[in-house]
Amino acid sequence: MRALRSAQRAVIAETIAVGSELLVGGRSDSNSLFITEALGRLGIEVRFKSIVGDDQADMVQVLKTAANRAGVVIMTGGLGPTVDDCTREAVAKATGRRLARRKAAFDGMTARLAQWGRTPNKGQLRQATIPAGATVVANPVGSAPGFVLAWKGATIVTLPGVPREMEAMMTESVIPFLADQLARSKQAAPQPIIRHTFHTWGLPEAEVDAKLLGLIPKGLSVDVGLLASPMGVLVSLTTKSGGAESVSGIRLASLVDEVRARLRDCLFAEGREAMEDVVGRLLCEQRRTVALAESCTGGLIGHRLTQVPGSSAYVDRGAICYSNQSKSEMLGVPVVLIAKHGAVSREVAAAMAKGIRERAGVSVGLSVTGIAGPGGATETKPVGLVYVGLDGGAEGSLTKEFRFHGDRSVVKQRSSQAALELLRRWLIAHGGAASPRD
Amino acid sequence: MRALRSAQRAVIAETIAVGSELLVGGRSDSNSLFITEALGRLGIEVRFKSIVGDDQADMVQVLKTAANRAGVVIMTGGLGPTVDDCTREAVAKATGRRLARRKAAFDGMTARLAQWGRTPNKGQLRQATIPAGATVVANPVGSAPGFVLAWKGATIVTLPGVPREMEAMMTESVIPFLADQLARSKQAAPQPIIRHTFHTWGLPEAEVDAKLLGLIPKGLSVDVGLLASPMGVLVSLTTKSGGAESVSGIRLASLVDEVRARLRDCLFAEGREAMEDVVGRLLCEQRRTVALAESCTGGLIGHRLTQVPGSSAYVDRGAICYSNQSKSEMLGVPVVLIAKHGAVSREVAAAMAKGIRERAGVSVGLSVTGIAGPGGATETKPVGLVYVGLDGGAEGSLTKEFRFHGDRSVVKQRSSQAALELLRRWLIAHGGAASPRD
Repeated sequence: MRALRSAQRAVIAETIAVGSELLVGGRSDSNSLFITEALGRLGIEVRFKSIVGDDQADMVQVLKTAANRAGVVIMTGGLGPTVDDCTREAVAKATGRRLARRKAAFDGMTARLAQWGRTPNKGQLRQATIPAGATVVANPVGSAPGFVLAWKGATIVTLPGVPREMEAMMTESVIPFLADQLARSKQAAPQPIIRHTFHTWGLPEAEVDAKLLGLIPKGLSVDVGLLASPMGVLVSLTTKSGGAESVSGIRLASLVDEVRARLRDCLFAEGREAMEDVVGRLLCEQRRTVALAESCTGGLIGHRLTQVPGSSAYVDRGAICYSNQSKSEMLGVPVVLIAKHGAVSREVAAAMAKGIRERAGVSVGLSVTGIAGPGGATETKPVGLVYVGLDGGAEGSLTKEFRFHGDRSVVKQRSSQAALELLRRWLIAHGGAASPRD
Repeated sequence: MRALRSAQRAVIAETIAVGSELLVGGRSDSNSLFITEALGRLGIEVRFKSIVGDDQADMVQVLKTAANRAGVVIMTGGLGPTVDDCTREAVAKATGRRLARRKAAFDGMTARLAQWGRTPNKGQLRQATIPAGATVVANPVGSAPGFVLAWKGATIVTLPGVPREMEAMMTESVIPFLADQLARSKQAAPQPIIRHTFHTWGLPEAEVDAKLLGLIPKGLSVDVGLLASPMGVLVSLTTKSGGAESVSGIRLASLVDEVRARLRDCLFAEGREAMEDVVGRLLCEQRRTVALAESCTGGLIGHRLTQVPGSSAYVDRGAICYSNQSKSEMLGVPVVLIAKHGAVSREVAAAMAKGIRERAGVSVGLSVTGIAGPGGATETKPVGLVYVGLDGGAEGSLTKEFRFHGDRSVVKQRSSQAALELLRRWLIAHGGAASPRD
């Protein structure tokens, strides 16, 4: 590793997540996004992420490595009351500090437990022991206190792994502490790291990549990132800390405009907005209501739309019509139509969208029928064949055919995304022309 | 770090995931679960997990640290055709090897691209360059080859980050290679690491923890792990590699039995089964069909049940009845009942379950109505108040009230889990007495 000057190291961060279960994976890691963004606003860049089990010797090793390459180390987890929780002990051991019960930690914890009508047990008393010289970080949400410790030029921060607690402690204590530390240092204040994300749908990663060729002028320290998932390809522009040439807001804004222009055919959202947020916003703005008729997606579109707070204003209802009989009974799809074209057909998708729109009396009906697999395919209808239907009454209707690759879960995800994208485009095209509810 | 004898180090693994987007997080990491389980069957324990961006110097640093503490290092990602992809270069640099185009890598890649009707571009030609002395790992699914390299007593494996490609290459090449390497070594073959997981619902983590107190006899090298999420508390028993006392199958089996006994009131599944798998299996076995009436879950229960292959055999339909009007129109819930008790009430939950069962002609109807938040609360009905209803016709009906904490997404998840758990218990209690479909 190239030797880092302390000015550089001060703006490099590493996160350490503690917990044997985390080594196994399989869960979404929401803490990283929060920590990366919060530190980025201070100009501190998360460059390394480590995950280690509840083994104290392993934790000591990981912590020493981190403090050597990063100026800010954020450790989450392992502060609980059970014997497994040994983050306090590991930090004390790595830094050669003694653990002792601290009044600030003890008082905060007992006050919190008292609110819940409890008194601390033996394990919880351990939670109030903190390495000597560390500053206690109050936990405004839970019982486990955290702490901040300066060691060999690095700032070591330990916080609970529970997202709600970690976020509150970062916001209320750690970020102000780090901001103050940067302000006091003799170095020039680092530029905030700005990350702008773009969400695209409909093009493979390689084609999105090709569209962005030559985007960044030589010497400008902006990273372009791409990440493909069943929901589309995410593109990010990130200004780097300590880059060769600092990026002004104006230069980044013009790059953002350039990306928008290059990706205009496949861009559906930016920043924290997901497809369901965008569709929800358009439905709200246009005072429209929607009803769903889902076969192969099985309720996923309804689930996604209703993840958005306030969605009850525009989601009226949905029919999950898995059986053929339910398509006829719930949506009025003629039995003969299903017999003639099959349940997975353009005709049935159209009838489903029309049926739910009419029965619900909403502005627009959206339908999906397809073969999610692994079973259900025929010679002419392979797994991944999906039809999306949209019915806007007097404003017209349309259907679209898709052939997706992937397992059942991927086909469901892609189908839901394709349906919502069809709705998004339709809403944009049909702008202000909302028809009132019957 | 304590000095590790090579016999120990050979059974310690580290995974390194490469990609700047991964540092930001927010996505579920499915690769770790697969790698941990596959290596565990060989007796190799993943003890460290690192994530690093596309910066070559950072990658070199992380790789050197990993190879120093782990005998097996699995690197995923950064093997693609774009300039950002520099895993090959980083491994070459860290190990002091030269990169050169290798016939095995080139032939495999061009053959794969030819299947897709393409010829390699300049970026893809780079993918066929491999560090000197490395063994090429064929990619049976995609175009990027991987490689295995022995360096300073560690085995460094590089694979694409795409789960499907990584899994195929691990299964077909890497695992047999590592098994062979272990067999040739003069050390005694390591015991496979066995991990048994239990899924519980209804008790907080601290209470599950208390039930497991004193479970593991002193000196026995079995780890007990707990991980809380909105879907419940996961408990795992893991035998450790190189532990003080090896754990025989009989001893582990008796521990598994003991856990089952201690957790019997809250245990709903084991191993890879999720709640929707268990409910699906019971519905199948009992030849029953189910229909759903979802208000605050908005389709999530339908989505979860239909994630299971073959679920079309027992999921007939679902009504996502978000508006009050839809509860009456789709389920026949009397308008006066809603006016009298409110849409979020025990009475409406019961009527919803009955309505969907009767209309669908299925064995059992399942309903949820509640306040997911953040809006919608009243003085007597707080956010998180949820009613679940189940109607089994002649076999009886029941309702249950819940008061959940958490944000909109958490309340939806917990509500779906509570509803499926109610159904699971009801199916077990009503065993063979399935009523035929009308």
